[in-house]
Amino acid sequence: MTLLLAIDGGGTGTRCIAVDPGGRTRGDGRAGPSNHLHVPLVTATEALRMATSEALSKAGATIQDVALVSAGLAGVDFDGTGADTAAGMLRSIGFGRVVVHGDMVIAHRGALAGDPGVVALAGTGSAVLGITRGGATIKAGGWGPLYDDQGSAYQLGRLGLVAAAEAFDGSGPATALVERLTAALGASNLPDTVARLYGTASGQQRVAALAPVVTACADEGDDVAAAICGRAGAALARAVLAVIRRLHALEAREGRAAGGAREAPACLASYQGAVLERSGLVRAAFLETVRAGEPQVEVRPPRFAPIVGAVLLGMCDAKWDLRLESLETASGV
Amino acid sequence: MTLLLAIDGGGTGTRCIAVDPGGRTRGDGRAGPSNHLHVPLVTATEALRMATSEALSKAGATIQDVALVSAGLAGVDFDGTGADTAAGMLRSIGFGRVVVHGDMVIAHRGALAGDPGVVALAGTGSAVLGITRGGATIKAGGWGPLYDDQGSAYQLGRLGLVAAAEAFDGSGPATALVERLTAALGASNLPDTVARLYGTASGQQRVAALAPVVTACADEGDDVAAAICGRAGAALARAVLAVIRRLHALEAREGRAAGGAREAPACLASYQGAVLERSGLVRAAFLETVRAGEPQVEVRPPRFAPIVGAVLLGMCDAKWDLRLESLETASGV
Repeated sequence: MTLLLAIDGGGTGTRCIAVDPGGRTRGDGRAGPSNHLHVPLVTATEALRMATSEALSKAGATIQDVALVSAGLAGVDFDGTGADTAAGMLRSIGFGRVVVHGDMVIAHRGALAGDPGVVALAGTGSAVLGITRGGATIKAGGWGPLYDDQGSAYQLGRLGLVAAAEAFDGSGPATALVERLTAALGASNLPDTVARLYGTASGQQRVAALAPVVTACADEGDDVAAAICGRAGAALARAVLAVIRRLHALEAREGRAAGGAREAPACLASYQGAVLERSGLVRAAFLETVRAGEPQVEVRPPRFAPIVGAVLLGMCDAKWDLRLESLETASGV
Repeated sequence: MTLLLAIDGGGTGTRCIAVDPGGRTRGDGRAGPSNHLHVPLVTATEALRMATSEALSKAGATIQDVALVSAGLAGVDFDGTGADTAAGMLRSIGFGRVVVHGDMVIAHRGALAGDPGVVALAGTGSAVLGITRGGATIKAGGWGPLYDDQGSAYQLGRLGLVAAAEAFDGSGPATALVERLTAALGASNLPDTVARLYGTASGQQRVAALAPVVTACADEGDDVAAAICGRAGAALARAVLAVIRRLHALEAREGRAAGGAREAPACLASYQGAVLERSGLVRAAFLETVRAGEPQVEVRPPRFAPIVGAVLLGMCDAKWDLRLESLETASGV
């Protein structure tokens, strides 16, 4: 059997699917985080080993059946910084042919299936990637938690904690977040949550894991939580608008360089990640702010998940010729 | 010689002064952070050992001359949580009689010299402490960096980083902070600052150390930095107003319990710490917001530094009778 292994490795979890040359998914696997900047190299390598071996085992295949590994990993930047380290982890597992992209790159390829445009990725962290018609790339965000990854699950969780602390102190409006975050952290009262978040190596993940509590509170009508969701969506949109402006400038230059007529600055935008996909309030604020800033931009829902973006990029490298339609099934894994 | 050792130990540094029964400062010492929640116990203990031995050495005294150690430490809460651990550190150095308070408690005692009222403390972290006429205490803030210590040096530094990242990406207004924070972190460009802040155990301190860069930019007319300072001062004021409201409610109850006539709810407020003391913009926003919320509150500049608060609390314990005026000199150390 000849297989392509596609990997989507993030700050919270790692996913792998084994795809045959016909585009059928033959097996899948999951494991913990594989961002080598945030967890030790051995931990990240072990996550990659577990996810890939589970996918191969379910496919009834072995490592010898793998024609190519195509990975998109957090901890690898859009320009390839960090890719060597990540490729080294995969080679140490025993894979021969390995292509590594940043998580933003596979998210972009999945969401727009190869079309130029801008994609906002909001998972544990967040970032925005734009690709011009000529293939040039522009990034915004992705600075990590200390710089506030706008619209990320981490930011949502953190702003939820801030709002709960202010409500508890009486210096901010009352909110259901006090009770809900206390319960989510298994504490008996809000001050007891402090000890549960500090001193743990995975503080960022524990905070990011609170994002669904905040979006649920917002959906249930809590005004404070709803304001946090609106702020997150608008901030992501501002990053998208900034990338679109730089994209237009680059494409105008590319058009002049090619000597062609300057095309109208139309642009596609899309998004990926749990925050924008699962919270209608975050998405609504995102769409509204993008449209208010650049009315001619077409915002599409993501066509494929990031892991299918890794499949598409791998197929190019492996020179497998495949119609996108045959991958629709893989997206559902 | 009989001496009282007063200690002010925070997230960034530790200070000790040796005071004689006449209120004269005979020696002082400094060392690194002694917050045992943020640095290992051995590190915190070593900082306490260094600061105290330097103060004793300058006073020409030994550990046998110390009648009492009165310490105010970050990592000890206003209600005494954590005091046992801190006292254990001091006893392991060889001190027999030890009294430990939270850093907020000595800050309050120093700023208002024993009067009831509310004191905002904004150093590496921040917190607000109110003390009623009857001696009851009310705290707001002090949740730590993950919950955004409003108005703290950490928050100022972090908001500076966020604003610089947004300006760099083009998703926020231009600001001098991009260049200034890059230089302050010894990096060649803003993306290079990322590696300098993550993966270091002292991330909180390194971010807090950027606060003077932000306040300096604001003083030089940078609108983005000025907005950050204004936001910090207003947030600290909201915490003060919340404590004042709870103080009034408690004092009304205390008044009824004592059967006395209910006094008019006047209140004193003050502040401590580098952020509020050194930045006129933070202080102006703080004062304006406090006065807008509670016009009858009298906001006083701090009378003594926190370490003098530790002296005053120690003198009570040691039953040393001393007039406040004789301590004015100690405040200047």
